[in-house]
Amino acid sequence: MADVATTEYQLAREAKLTALVTSILEKVGVAHADARVVADVLVAADLRGIESHGVARLESYYVSRIRGGKLKAKPNYEVVRETETTVLFDADNGLGHPVSKLAMSKVIEKAQKYGSAYGAVRNSNHYGIAGYYAMMALEHDLVGMSSTNTVRYGAPTFGKDTMLGTNPFAYAIPAKNEPAFVLDFATTTVPKGKLEVYKRKGKPLLDGWAIDETGHATTDPDAALRGALLPLGGLGTEHGGHKGYGLGMLADIFCGVVSGGKFGLGLPVVTDVMEGAISHWFSAFRIDAFRDADEFKADMDKELRAFKDSARAPGHDRIYVAGEIEHENTLRHRAGGVPVHSKVWDGLQKLAGELGIPFDVT
Amino acid sequence: MADVATTEYQLAREAKLTALVTSILEKVGVAHADARVVADVLVAADLRGIESHGVARLESYYVSRIRGGKLKAKPNYEVVRETETTVLFDADNGLGHPVSKLAMSKVIEKAQKYGSAYGAVRNSNHYGIAGYYAMMALEHDLVGMSSTNTVRYGAPTFGKDTMLGTNPFAYAIPAKNEPAFVLDFATTTVPKGKLEVYKRKGKPLLDGWAIDETGHATTDPDAALRGALLPLGGLGTEHGGHKGYGLGMLADIFCGVVSGGKFGLGLPVVTDVMEGAISHWFSAFRIDAFRDADEFKADMDKELRAFKDSARAPGHDRIYVAGEIEHENTLRHRAGGVPVHSKVWDGLQKLAGELGIPFDVT
Repeated sequence: MADVATTEYQLAREAKLTALVTSILEKVGVAHADARVVADVLVAADLRGIESHGVARLESYYVSRIRGGKLKAKPNYEVVRETETTVLFDADNGLGHPVSKLAMSKVIEKAQKYGSAYGAVRNSNHYGIAGYYAMMALEHDLVGMSSTNTVRYGAPTFGKDTMLGTNPFAYAIPAKNEPAFVLDFATTTVPKGKLEVYKRKGKPLLDGWAIDETGHATTDPDAALRGALLPLGGLGTEHGGHKGYGLGMLADIFCGVVSGGKFGLGLPVVTDVMEGAISHWFSAFRIDAFRDADEFKADMDKELRAFKDSARAPGHDRIYVAGEIEHENTLRHRAGGVPVHSKVWDGLQKLAGELGIPFDVT
Repeated sequence: MADVATTEYQLAREAKLTALVTSILEKVGVAHADARVVADVLVAADLRGIESHGVARLESYYVSRIRGGKLKAKPNYEVVRETETTVLFDADNGLGHPVSKLAMSKVIEKAQKYGSAYGAVRNSNHYGIAGYYAMMALEHDLVGMSSTNTVRYGAPTFGKDTMLGTNPFAYAIPAKNEPAFVLDFATTTVPKGKLEVYKRKGKPLLDGWAIDETGHATTDPDAALRGALLPLGGLGTEHGGHKGYGLGMLADIFCGVVSGGKFGLGLPVVTDVMEGAISHWFSAFRIDAFRDADEFKADMDKELRAFKDSARAPGHDRIYVAGEIEHENTLRHRAGGVPVHSKVWDGLQKLAGELGIPFDVT
């Protein structure tokens, strides 16, 4: 399939890319089943077009940390506390994805039995896209939710210190014929990666994205990278910045404080000192606890279509609903190949070579 | 206490204002206990400084609708469906506050028993501030949440039709010595009332608040009032408007679609044809299902202080956490009197007079 690749991106087959990532992780000591979950989550991000959270992270976020002894390849994932409808896991400084899949599975099981449930994981590491775990609920006719705290990049309203991560929330709600509603968003206006992209392109940032070290608004990518991201809603309160700030802090409380993990100033500002500092949060409830699930899903189709069919603003020919673009990306990439940036592609090839794994992803 | 009032505001005593609102509602046919709940919720809004949702609404939102036969004074609040950890109420086109207090009480009871719970109410009307119901969880050492859909004012990203209400979300989390974290926010950038305030003052709006009828950005309050509010994050996607749009739609789904109530285009665009079109959503989980509640609350103090003590941006001498300003307002208004705008004051006095109720609130 490489012949259809652009100069910047090459196309991998989903199954082969997943197998490669699994093999790489196994080679550095991760159990097969766990490695497979991580591969699934990373490739799901690439399929959905969220390449910042995909296989591009394999080396720097996971493999190099395992090799450097900062992340346990074979952790002891453990249930710390449990009630009928809640569960708390300790990830033992292992990979965030397998323990999160475990936790969300338990939340789903409990919600199926009792109607609803919540879960949390502490002493964990990056778990990939929040939406993956929320979406696990869909096939069971449940509503799914997830959140995670992350390393600190963002400032609170009226502040200048980096106090908050991009702290995303994800919600997944099934529909009938329409793709599911999947809202997965960072509570900062933009992710840090966007500042880096603008820096590379030599473009000024937009107002409301970031401040410099002194706390003043800036559109200079370099100054912003030394400064802090702004919460969703931007600088101050006039555009609702305090709402994004509140949501970011909510994620930190739901994940870090509820779980008894690290939170606030306990979270690192740079990625290489993280060691189990991250926590996650999950919830689900049964649709048929409220109404017939088929009727609900038919109504979801109506709801989604109503927005998609509403009048367009000038210059726009389409109105999207949450998760729609990512769903279409997934269908396209499943059929035509998963785009992997040439630099990431080369990195994977090099890593596979070092570990003695055949590089065959096309 | 009237002697300390400013020219624009007069000060009422909390208990007397609550009693007056209760009496007025009873006089138009609302049962005493229900009337008392509505009064509590409205006065709580004024105490917190959210006067748009306080006693100012008594006549137009509630009394006039009851008198006009559009809202039932004595509805039959009914449980429609229930599991161990979920409950759905039908409000029978009654007042939204009593049924919501009932629903959240049930959610709290179920969460205490099983660890967590969710609830919804359909065929309801405006329930006041979302934060009131979330905060009911606090004294039980639970985390509380609530949301409601509302009449349509706001446009989706890339659209121009009014498809979404201000659809708020509220979250309340207890702390130890610090005031509780209470995040209660509309998912539009600003509420509609703000456009009206700017119109009265002859001031231009800020960019990112609203669009005109044709879908173009506008800073003209009149054009905006004929147009639509923008979601948190503003116009388009560059500042994250799709996130606020997604959150607004999430509220509509959680409330309207989950409950089997009205949603999307089923919701009115003007307030006077509402008749039970509004739905609400609630959830709670037990803190000690995850960790010792006292340790949690001590950590919440640390978390809240960390943000409050972080470095200020230039021009700011204080960093707030969610709910802090409203908490301080409440303490001040409890001690010194609840400020009621002179126009609202006169309206209450007139209404009391009409109904033969003594007007004594100072």
